[in-house]
This record gives sequence, structure tokens and C-alpha cells, in this order.
Amino acid sequence: MKNIVVRNIKRTDAGLVKRLGALGVATVHEAYGRSGLMKPYLRPVWQGGEAAGTAVTVLAHPGDNWMIHVAVEQCQPGDILVVGCSADNTDGMFGDLLATSLMARGVKGLVIDVGVRDAKSLREMGFPVWSKAISAKGTVKATPGSVNVPVVCGGINVKPGDAVIADDDGVVVVSPKDAAEVVTRGEKRHADEEGKRKQLAAGVLGLDMYNMREPLKKAGLVYVDEAPED
Amino acid sequence: MKNIVVRNIKRTDAGLVKRLGALGVATVHEAYGRSGLMKPYLRPVWQGGEAAGTAVTVLAHPGDNWMIHVAVEQCQPGDILVVGCSADNTDGMFGDLLATSLMARGVKGLVIDVGVRDAKSLREMGFPVWSKAISAKGTVKATPGSVNVPVVCGGINVKPGDAVIADDDGVVVVSPKDAAEVVTRGEKRHADEEGKRKQLAAGVLGLDMYNMREPLKKAGLVYVDEAPED
Amino acid sequence: MKNIVVRNIKRTDAGLVKRLGALGVATVHEAYGRSGLMKPYLRPVWQGGEAAGTAVTVLAHPGDNWMIHVAVEQCQPGDILVVGCSADNTDGMFGDLLATSLMARGVKGLVIDVGVRDAKSLREMGFPVWSKAISAKGTVKATPGSVNVPVVCGGINVKPGDAVIADDDGVVVVSPKDAAEVVTRGEKRHADEEGKRKQLAAGVLGLDMYNMREPLKKAGLVYVDEAPED
Amino acid sequence: MKNIVVRNIKRTDAGLVKRLGALGVATVHEAYGRSGLMKPYLRPVWQGGEAAGTAVTVLAHPGDNWMIHVAVEQCQPGDILVVGCSADNTDGMFGDLLATSLMARGVKGLVIDVGVRDAKSLREMGFPVWSKAISAKGTVKATPGSVNVPVVCGGINVKPGDAVIADDDGVVVVSPKDAAEVVTRGEKRHADEEGKRKQLAAGVLGLDMYNMREPLKKAGLVYVDEAPED
Amino acid sequence: MKNIVVRNIKRTDAGLVKRLGALGVATVHEAYGRSGLMKPYLRPVWQGGEAAGTAVTVLAHPGDNWMIHVAVEQCQPGDILVVGCSADNTDGMFGDLLATSLMARGVKGLVIDVGVRDAKSLREMGFPVWSKAISAKGTVKATPGSVNVPVVCGGINVKPGDAVIADDDGVVVVSPKDAAEVVTRGEKRHADEEGKRKQLAAGVLGLDMYNMREPLKKAGLVYVDEAPED
Amino acid sequence: MKNIVVRNIKRTDAGLVKRLGALGVATVHEAYGRSGLMKPYLRPVWQGGEAAGTAVTVLAHPGDNWMIHVAVEQCQPGDILVVGCSADNTDGMFGDLLATSLMARGVKGLVIDVGVRDAKSLREMGFPVWSKAISAKGTVKATPGSVNVPVVCGGINVKPGDAVIADDDGVVVVSPKDAAEVVTRGEKRHADEEGKRKQLAAGVLGLDMYNMREPLKKAGLVYVDEAPED
Repeated sequence: MKNIVVRNIKRTDAGLVKRLGALGVATVHEAYGRSGLMKPYLRPVWQGGEAAGTAVTVLAHPGDNWMIHVAVEQCQPGDILVVGCSADNTDGMFGDLLATSLMARGVKGLVIDVGVRDAKSLREMGFPVWSKAISAKGTVKATPGSVNVPVVCGGINVKPGDAVIADDDGVVVVSPKDAAEVVTRGEKRHADEEGKRKQLAAGVLGLDMYNMREPLKKAGLVYVDEAPED
Repeated sequence: MKNIVVRNIKRTDAGLVKRLGALGVATVHEAYGRSGLMKPYLRPVWQGGEAAGTAVTVLAHPGDNWMIHVAVEQCQPGDILVVGCSADNTDGMFGDLLATSLMARGVKGLVIDVGVRDAKSLREMGFPVWSKAISAKGTVKATPGSVNVPVVCGGINVKPGDAVIADDDGVVVVSPKDAAEVVTRGEKRHADEEGKRKQLAAGVLGLDMYNMREPLKKAGLVYVDEAPED
Repeated sequence: MKNIVVRNIKRTDAGLVKRLGALGVATVHEAYGRSGLMKPYLRPVWQGGEAAGTAVTVLAHPGDNWMIHVAVEQCQPGDILVVGCSADNTDGMFGDLLATSLMARGVKGLVIDVGVRDAKSLREMGFPVWSKAISAKGTVKATPGSVNVPVVCGGINVKPGDAVIADDDGVVVVSPKDAAEVVTRGEKRHADEEGKRKQLAAGVLGLDMYNMREPLKKAGLVYVDEAPED
Repeated sequence: MKNIVVRNIKRTDAGLVKRLGALGVATVHEAYGRSGLMKPYLRPVWQGGEAAGTAVTVLAHPGDNWMIHVAVEQCQPGDILVVGCSADNTDGMFGDLLATSLMARGVKGLVIDVGVRDAKSLREMGFPVWSKAISAKGTVKATPGSVNVPVVCGGINVKPGDAVIADDDGVVVVSPKDAAEVVTRGEKRHADEEGKRKQLAAGVLGLDMYNMREPLKKAGLVYVDEAPED
Repeated sequence: MKNIVVRNIKRTDAGLVKRLGALGVATVHEAYGRSGLMKPYLRPVWQGGEAAGTAVTVLAHPGDNWMIHVAVEQCQPGDILVVGCSADNTDGMFGDLLATSLMARGVKGLVIDVGVRDAKSLREMGFPVWSKAISAKGTVKATPGSVNVPVVCGGINVKPGDAVIADDDGVVVVSPKDAAEVVTRGEKRHADEEGKRKQLAAGVLGLDMYNMREPLKKAGLVYVDEAPED
Repeated sequence: MKNIVVRNIKRTDAGLVKRLGALGVATVHEAYGRSGLMKPYLRPVWQGGEAAGTAVTVLAHPGDNWMIHVAVEQCQPGDILVVGCSADNTDGMFGDLLATSLMARGVKGLVIDVGVRDAKSLREMGFPVWSKAISAKGTVKATPGSVNVPVVCGGINVKPGDAVIADDDGVVVVSPKDAAEVVTRGEKRHADEEGKRKQLAAGVLGLDMYNMREPLKKAGLVYVDEAPED
């Protein structure tokens, strides 16, 4: 119940994070047993941005971005700032000044469960942000929260140091202890997909490539030539 | 109550579909007596995409894309795949592999009442998709549904073979029996609009061009020079 | 309770409007004591558009755009059309013909609490629009409303002649009597931000630049080296 | 594309409708292969109401209840009025006067994809209504629609004469051609549930009663005594 | 831009407010030319509550209920407290202690564009509340707002002293200058409805009572005996 | 990434849970430093229900209630079942049979981040449920999840054994290590409130009772007799 800033956190191995980033959100999520994915209301502020890093987490209060300022100091190159909020809110709790500060520290991006402002500048700066809303709504600096404690963001419980991968498909979070296995599975999946893509492009049907005809028949699917009478 | 795949469907005439596509969604919807328009929560995954084709329909279940694989085989060049779902869902039930397969068969686009993934790849491939959400959320292949039965998608009951027109303004569906009349009306409307556009650009007021002043007066509209006292 | 069109309205000084526009929505909203901001569901139809002007207001009814036609005649160069609606609605009550007409009169943009259509054309014409939805849904011309009366749009009560500033961050409305003071405060704020941006880019922490360390300590924030036992 | 009123419709057998009503929405939906269920945003205006009847359908336009007046004449004892709308809308398109009229004709209830008003009176009259919203918002009588054509309501395509069952769990629609089979399956299911309920109340586990332990094991579920290290 | 409390406001005549309350929300809204109705997301915390009074207005900030405490002192018997908020918020900014205080001053009810808590106590106390949400979320007392200035609540601009009528159908607001006319129209409408109700209960059709058959025919509505071929 | 059932969990002390329950959600949330509160979209299925217990947690998948059956066996008297879901979903994953089973084991209630069915029966059985939706939508038993692992429900990370308190105001979760302190603070707060309630009922103003006048003045609040000119 105290408001704390935790200085030392155990970050996911940087090499693994890089390889997760190369796989992209959809593949990592699948390789992770279809888990870790934030809810789809978190959308990129500008299209095409991609980020992979280790989570520095912030627990903030609605309409109050004080703790984001506190968190900047705890960021290292390769981090991604992840901001949860104690109540639903769309205020613009982050803008281009904070982005400038984070870029100066080598931070890779921001995932924030409220709104952000300065959308045009963020796009021009090339600083990737995933947020719940875009809003110019101003904030106060009045209530302390915490930095580097577990926070719920986009429906996922994020722990400091977790690997965070984000692109146009959303945001996925991987625990450090699972990162190596997810990389292995994901890279295998990725390699398999290349072969599949070629077959499908050549006109092979997924029905045949995945051997679905028999299980579909067993599940009771019936082919008919004409639509039944209504 | 059975799960079926209907092999033979009666498609709207390809020439009419092409002409409907040239008119665009807004004009077709107006020419159709302001009907057939899907709800506006169906949005293009990438801006500027346009598609016109004949519906191959899928009834799928939430989080299960098995039937989409089944439907691919039933698609012909010029079709648009239309996917309804038996419950509200935003999972990413379609991605770049399925898009590759559809493109290989000459399919023009996808309209889907759930989420899709691989947004960036879909954009780069130029495969146009209208969906309810973008989400990397993975799916299973466990429960059969049906292909080429009537499905509700975006609030519209779509029948196999219906003409489907989609652009940045949304998605509109036209029954084969009405297509010729809608084309005729739409092309007339389109021609009329060109003349109107020129007049309006030259400063003619819609009030005068549409002869609205008299009906407005009859409806009780009053012009005053100054705001009334509060 | 009568439906009226008010011909003469007192517009915010054009020089002030221009300077407000140069400041942008986020700065104007802050300089205005964090007030005047419309709700963030009002989004630009195309990214990067910006507009600053004086409000000509419309009170319309759902699915009926008759009053927008009436309002065009009341617009002067430098105006922004602001449309409120008597009930929640997403129909496409504005399209490229009306945009053509407004551009012919020198209108700077549109803010509308319902839907719009012809999204692609609006983008190509460069006419900036902020709306609640994009929808091809057609409308009727049946029920009179009013022009140049106070209307609620995006949760803000807008009066005819108010300054309206809009960009990718949203829409903010300033009363004529406050415009000069907001300009002064905003330009000062803007100047200050330039200096701050340079410091932050150079690695200075907001914690130090804003002297936050002492107040944070007083508010009870505690720094710890390691995460506490769970 | 014409606006029509169809006088003669083929109603589901009244005896079957009664038996479907006795089963309730959840059992009917399950017995129907988990289909036919309207979306859960349709909620009862007052708790505890139940209705079973045959659909008289209305296609109305937003904010316009003219067609509901037209539909009253087509209703017979045992019918349920089902109202679809051509665009999303929450206006109060139905109130106590229309309910009085429907009750005078022996109509069992109303399912409406917009709003209703006079909520207190509807409750006091005991007329059951399932709607999208409660709203006093007044409507016009200006645009014709159709009566007894297929309409989409709550995401389901409803045909005139379909059986409609509604209670606190929602609304389910059954096609006349399937009604007998659904009744048979549903009554069997209902009988089975009574036995299951007794066993569960006596402390038997569903895991054992449904023989789930083996399939769970095969699906990879593992029991551990203590939580794994984080 | 200053935060002010206005002590003296001009309240709508108490006799008129009482008569508006007797008419109920739906009738008042109709008699007011279908205007003044708040959006339907404002719902009663407990069913069956009714209130009619004069508005004391509050402009509050999200998650901060300081100004509500300030407003209590400005309330007189017969008032209704109306709370607008500068950003979307669902926090529980009002509970049973504030209700106790308002009841002690003879206040008739609360209309609040955020959340409230202590729902059970409010029901037991019989203090009627219309809110956007029920939430226990606690608030701070940190940022001043204003009392008795115009505020937007539920999409309506409410001025201090306006008549506010609320029941299960929602909330409607009437300007003092229009109250007498609305009462007159509403009471006439109410009297008319009694006669109509009797006719409808006796089986007379609205189609005949309202003479709709001819205008429907003119509008193009066609009666057919059987459904057209699909 | 494995699917597990954890048999032994450390439950919050039963005496503390009981005392937390007596305080109610709003007081516990305040005493917990305004934390632990689930989002307000989780609403009671029937009004007036209250529950206090220790969490047995379930991680389920959308439309699949298999794990709830598994979880029943892990429940003890005094527990509350808390169900999180890996994606947004409103299907009716819980009904009266499962409730019968839980009641047979002495479970106090259910908090579930999806839909439930059999609303009327749950009310009649007196089994309290807080859910995201009421829906008859049927589910499958196909995909394993986990029991007694941390799950996110209503935006809160819930751990097995946490104290869960729920009433008409929502649901709050307290960690075992904080429970004693929250009880102490909450009971003090509760006692204080009784005194305050009496003063407020007697007409004392919160402004005076809380000594707000001076801080309000410092914050810049100004009292004026009349509304300023617009």
C-alpha cells in the first residue's frame, strides 16, 4: 500500500528481446501458447511503428502523470515504458516532451493504458506509442503512484523487466523465464510459415496442407451441391 | 442446424458488380434506397483500399477460424469473403497466410465481423480487409460452422452471391435481383453529382440548387438578425 | 423552442484565431486552464489536418442534414462549421458536395458530432474534418433545426463565433472574451517548452528541471533498491 | 427496395411455441445447436418478464416509429413484435400507448433493436419488452419501412412467423421448420438437467458426473501441489 | 477561466417545476419540441425514483469531488444537484454522506455525469440519483472547479436555475423562460393521451385514430398478401 | 506456459475476510489506499447481493467453461470463485448447475470477467454473481486453462487466496499480507463515518466539518454574488 520506486529490476536478456522483436507480435503470442497479449483497444498512435524492449512499469492515477516523470530516471537503453492506471481514463498523460526525455535515455517505446497527446510530433519524432486514446486533455502532478511494481496494462499483468513486443497487431508481454523457449518456438514457427506461404501462393489449399478434410468430416461437416430449401 | 458447405451458388453478374464498384459505397447505398449498408464499426485495415465482388459467406464461431480455411476452396476469382460470427468477438481470425491463399484464387477482399492480424503485411500485400478490430489474438480450429449459408455481418443479412462493395466509407451489400436497378440509379445519381459539384464549387448555394428555401419556410424555419435574449 | 437562423454573430478576432491555431490544440487547452477540450471520440478523418477558425454552429437532428445546407450560407471565410446533434447518431451527414460548397466559401474545416462520408474525397480535397464516425449512411432533409445558436458538440457548449482549433490531438474551443489571454499564456508556454525540450534532449531529467524531488518525498514516495517480498 | 406490408405469414405452430417458452432461452439456444441467440445488449426493460410467441417483424428507420403503428394491425394473439432498425439508434421508439394497443390484440411482448420509453408504465402494465436502451427521446413519423419482411435484430436475421423466446437471459429465435426438433431436444435436455442438478446439489463433482478427468489429462492439464516459482 | 461559486441564481418557478414533474420526462421532452433530453447513458441508480427541481450546477474534475462539497451550501429546498465533469470519468464521486447532507437541505435528487457509490444506501435512503456508472472508486479533493456556472451534463448544457425532471425514462432540462409554455403544452398532451389510451385499449388502431392510412399510401407503402419471391 | 491446477493455496484469514465483508466494498477500497477495485463494468446479476471470501482463481478461454468445472473441486467453504478470460468475451460461461455445485461446497459467490446465464435462477437461489454480461450464449469444453494461478479480472491481478469483497458498489480485492491493516483502517473509517453522518444529517456542512474553506480559498476559489457577464 506504499508508493515505491524500485531501482533494481531483472531485465529479460537483451539478445532474446531482440529475437522476439524480429518475430513480431502475432508469432510471439502464438509461440507463447496464445498468451500474454494485451487487449486490442491498445492501438499504435502511428502506423508501422515497432518496438521490442524490457518493461519499466508505472502505476499512475487517472489524469495525473507525475509518476511518468519519476519513471524516466529508472529507464535504461533498451527499455519500454509500460503505464497502468488505477481507473479507466483517456486523458493525454504523455506528450512530446516526455518522449524527448525517453529518447534521450535510449527508450524504445511506450505502452500506456490511458491517452497521449502531441500525436503528430510523436509520429515525426519516430517514437512509437501504443495507447488507449489520443487526447490533448491536460493532467496534474498531485498523487504519487509507484514505479517498477507489477501493473495491469491492457488486461495483462506486466512485471518490471518483462519483454514487451509491440507492432501494428498490438502488444505482447513475455516473462523472462519463458523468453528463451518462446524464441525457440517462435523461430521454428516463423521458418515453417515461409514454406506454407509459398505453397499457399502456389494454390495449394490449407484444407490439404493442414490435413483438415478428415477431422472436418468427423466433426460433422457436410458438403451439399445446392442450398437447402428455406 | 447442420453444418454445411454449399458448393454451387448464384453469383451476381460480374459486369454489374464492376459497375457497382465504380460507383463506390456511398452512391450504391443511396441508389439502393439507403439500404444494405453494414454498421460503421467495420473499418478498413488500411486506408484507401477498395473492393467489389460476390459474396462467399462463412458462419464461424468466436476464436475459431476453421471454417475460413474451408471457405477458401469455395472461392472463385471475383469473390469477396464475408465472415459472420455466432457471438461478439475481436480475435484475430485472419492473417497473411489466409490472405495469400485468397489472393492465389483471385479473391478481391475480406469483410469479417471479428478481428484480423498481420495488419502490416495485409497492407503491404495490397489485400483489402474490412474488420471489427485488429488483434494478434490466436484462434483454434475446433468447431465446425457453415459456408455459403446466409450470415449476419455488420448488421446486414448477407446471402451467398450477393454483390459486396467496400471502400473507406464502409461496406454495402446488394441482392443480385436488385443489382441492375441499383446500377442504373447509381450511375444517374453519379452523373447528376458531377454537375452539382461544379455549381457548388462556383459558389452556388445548395439552398438554391436544391430549391430548399420554400420547404424550409413551410417547416417553420425563421431567420433573425440577432441572437434572441437568453 | 423555435427553429431559427441567426444571421449576425460576433466572431473572435481573426488575428487571435490565427495565433491560437499556431499554438495547436494541446497548448491552447493548457493555456485555457485545461478547459474547452472536446471529448476524444471526435477524431480527424485524415491524419495531419489542422484548422483554426470561428464557429458557425448547427443544431441538427439524427439522420437529417437539412440544417447543414442552411448553415453554408451563413459561413464566411475563416469560419469552421460546428455541428451538434439532438441524439447520438453516426450517420454520414456530410460528404464531398457539402465540402465543395464550404471550400468555395473559404471555410477552414468541419467539426461534427455524427458521422461523415466520402472520406477518401475529403482527404484528397484537403478539407479537414473531425467527426464521431465514418459512415456512408444516407440522410433525409425533413426536420428543421437551428443555425448559430449554442450547441453541445463533443461534450462542449459551443457558441457562434467561438474560436475553434483542431489538429491530430482533438478539438478545443475558446470563448472570444478569453482569446487574448489564452494567446498570451499559450505563447509564453510555447516559448518555455522550447527551452525545456532542449534540456530534456540533452539528458536533463524532468525530476530535476521541474524540481519534483522534494514534493515527491513529501507526498510519501519511497525509493527502494529491490522489490519487496510479495 | 419497395416498402411493403405482408399480410399473410406462416406462423410457427402455437403448441410448439408454448413448449419452447416453457424451456426458456438458455435451453432452447443449446437445443438449437447453440444458434439463434440475439446479442446480449438486448436487455429486459423489467426483470422477470418472459415471453414466447411468433414474430411479426418491422423494419424501421432511426428515430421514426411510423412502421410500428402499421405493424400493430398485422398482429394476432400470440405474436411478438420484433423491430429492426436501418441504423444504430437508441431513441424511445415505443411507449405505453403502443403497448396498450398491442396488449389489446393479444400480443405477448416486444423485442426492439432501439430504445423504448415509459419504462415504469410498461413494468406496471406487465408488458414484457427487450430493448437496446431506455430513452424518452421522441420520434417522428416520416419515412416508410416494411412489415413482415426479414429483419436483422440483435444480430439475428428474423423472419416473419419465427418462434421468439425471451426471458432474463436474452432472446432466442427459432425457425418454424426446426421448432419440433428443438422442442424434442430441449425437453430431453431439460429432463437430464434435473437429474444432474440433484447430483450436484448432493456434492457430486461435475468432473466426475461428466467424465472430464480423462479428457483433461489428455489435453495436458497437470495438477501440482504448490504454485511454481515465479 | 476563474473558478467561481455564484451565490444568487434565478430559479424556475416552483409551481411550474411541480407541474413539470407531474408530467414526467417523456411528456415534458415532447412538449418541449423534443429537446432538453440528456443522453440515455444517464440511468437511475434505483428503479422507480422520480425527482423534479431547480438546478444547482457543479463543474468538477475527474476523480475529484471537492466542488460537490462546495455546492451543498448553495442548495435550497427544491433544488436538484447537477454535476458535469471536465473529462469522461466513472469514479464514485458521490455517496451516502453527501446524500445525507443534501437531504438535510431539502434537495430533491442528483444528476451526475460520472459514477456514484453506496448504491444500496442511496436506495434505502430513498434519495434518487441518475448517474453514468456505479463505482466504489474513491476520489481526491485537490482541484477547484465552479458552482452555478453553465455545465454540460449528459450532452445538455444546463444553466443554474433550470428545471430538471428525472424518472425511469431519463432526465430532461427546461429553461425557466420556456417552463410555462412547456407546462401548458404538456398538460394538454397528457389529457389527450388519456383519451387515446382508452381507444387503443378498446381495440381502435393507431392507424385509424391518427389518420395514418392516407399519408402512408402517399409515402409509397404497399400492402401485399404474400411475401415476394426472394 | 503449462496448464496447471494448484491444489494448495494460502487463504486470507477467515476472520479478517469476515470483517472486511462487514465493511463493504467502498470502505475497504478507501482503507486500502484507494486500490484493489475492479472496473465498474463488473455488475451484480441481482441487486442487493453481498459476498466476502477467499479467491480460487480460474484462467479460462473465451466461450469455454471447462476450467470452471475443474475449479469447483478446488473450492472450500468460504471461497469465492474468480474467473479471468484470455480475451474479451460475453458468453454465458456459468449457470445454475455450476451454482448448485458451488453452493454444495459452501462457496460464497462468483466474480467472472465474461457473461453468465440463468439469471433468474441465480437470483432465486440467492447465489451472488458479479459479471460482465448476462447472456444465454452456450460454451464448449475444449481448451484447458489453469486453476489457482494469478489472473487478471476486471483490471485487477487476483492471486489465489486473496480476500474478495463484493456488493452493489462493485468488487475489491485485498492481498493477505495487507488484510489486517486494511481491516484496522477500515473499521476506524467506518466508526468515523457514523459521527459524520449524524452531523451532516443535523445540517452541519461538509465545508465546515472537513475544514475546507481555507484550502479552497488558497486554491483560488472565489465567491461572487451574481453570474459574470457572458
